[in-house]
Amino acid sequence: MTATRELRPIGHVRREGGIHLEIDEPYRPGLAKVELFEYAIVLWWVDGHDNEESRSIMQTELPYAPGVTAGVFACRSEYRPNPIGMTVCRIEKVEEELGLVWLSDIDAFEDSPVLDIKPYIPVVDRVRSPRVASWLDGWPDWMPAEGIGLYEE
Amino acid sequence: MTATRELRPIGHVRREGGIHLEIDEPYRPGLAKVELFEYAIVLWWVDGHDNEESRSIMQTELPYAPGVTAGVFACRSEYRPNPIGMTVCRIEKVEEELGLVWLSDIDAFEDSPVLDIKPYIPVVDRVRSPRVASWLDGWPDWMPAEGIGLYEE
Repeated sequence: MTATRELRPIGHVRREGGIHLEIDEPYRPGLAKVELFEYAIVLWWVDGHDNEESRSIMQTELPYAPGVTAGVFACRSEYRPNPIGMTVCRIEKVEEELGLVWLSDIDAFEDSPVLDIKPYIPVVDRVRSPRVASWLDGWPDWMPAEGIGLYEE
Repeated sequence: MTATRELRPIGHVRREGGIHLEIDEPYRPGLAKVELFEYAIVLWWVDGHDNEESRSIMQTELPYAPGVTAGVFACRSEYRPNPIGMTVCRIEKVEEELGLVWLSDIDAFEDSPVLDIKPYIPVVDRVRSPRVASWLDGWPDWMPAEGIGLYEE
């Protein structure tokens, strides 16, 4: 077994008063110039699935594709060995001093620990015409302008 | 301080004999159907920057933008509180039984721990016209077909 690595939450997802990230004080200087990007990739931790059972599931039925079972690395299920959520979010406003990053939306639950924020940069994040599994036929080709919301349970 | 969370590497980046991920045995069933996607988002750990000094840097000069200092959350620097690398990679082949995921390229060093693999799905990962900071003016609008290579040191 490879040694584990240590994640340090840098803040939390808050939904009250508008969807935002609340970044802890020591990390706030890292927000400088984030507002120059329209979109960010937010990495967060799925606390609700940080348990041995969820972390040992390797295949799952796809709720949106009846009859299809896929490996967890072929879907965005919250069951995975490292329950890292990754969401491309539209940034509405950044208040660096207060540590607040206001977002159009994020598919993360209240109080989810935030792990990282990365700017969305076309040359490394945007693929012109990616082939996908057939069960995604008919899904939109682009993220909706308002961003991605909380999954229905 | 929020409690830390535990990352478990699922394999490693290998560059010998072609760039690939070598996934450890317990996680290999998670690779089922990954080959139905042309691109994957690979999360990996930047071991070389997993130290107190690197993890406490909050702002950095941008090597590609002389005179610009930005927060680490406004760039893709390897200095960040949680040194998670994120690379959109083109998948060449998946050998599930052997735990091998062959990639066109990845900007990760030999032996970097792999944390997660997620399929690249347009509706959640592809933004039509993201505004970016002016220092990226003139950068390509799309990922090159061959994927992203190792950064020059």
